[in-house]
Amino acid sequence: MESIHLIIELFECDENKIKEIKPVKEIMDSVLLVSGMEKIFDFYHQFEPYGVSGVCLVKQSHISIHTWPEKKYAAMDIYTCGDAEKAREACKKAIELFNSKKWDVKEIKRGFVEKE
Amino acid sequence: MESIHLIIELFECDENKIKEIKPVKEIMDSVLLVSGMEKIFDFYHQFEPYGVSGVCLVKQSHISIHTWPEKKYAAMDIYTCGDAEKAREACKKAIELFNSKKWDVKEIKRGFVEKE
Repeated sequence: MESIHLIIELFECDENKIKEIKPVKEIMDSVLLVSGMEKIFDFYHQFEPYGVSGVCLVKQSHISIHTWPEKKYAAMDIYTCGDAEKAREACKKAIELFNSKKWDVKEIKRGFVEKE
Repeated sequence: MESIHLIIELFECDENKIKEIKPVKEIMDSVLLVSGMEKIFDFYHQFEPYGVSGVCLVKQSHISIHTWPEKKYAAMDIYTCGDAEKAREACKKAIELFNSKKWDVKEIKRGFVEKE
């Protein structure tokens, strides 16, 4: 069993896409579609005056998002024991849809790493 | 704004503590208490015949858990923009309560890292 966890730092995002739940959830759903992961449950919280946190539990683990619109910054995680290549595609989709101009992605292997 | 994200690999856990929601949720609540983080919402999913996924959204970001009892393995995340030292204490508490005999913890800085 091997999983990958993408730690995604999205800087210089379009702040209007990360202020409120509606656009954030729409983007998360698009990202999820690309990832091929199957949603079990999701939940989003609106911070005042702006900012959103959301987690989406999927059969393959989870996707999460936390936004700081005043910094044009969002922190996303895509963690899957499913298809790694699709997870990377989903990450690209998130960068595109949040209009992030600067990003950093760390890929971490988790679980039982098979010996090569 | 700087956050820390603890990527916690718990091997050789007590499998009876990671098979079903009840003990997992109890441990997560204890971990949360140590972390000083404030819960907004949590959700747990029972896999059949065993295994649990859970996410707890907190004001400071989130805690999550995914368990594979057949491997005596659990993958936990503690991600906080709050007190880093308390998050590390919460991680120790998780290791203790899941009776993990072997673990790996990666600490990742996220957000805007202040220049030293």
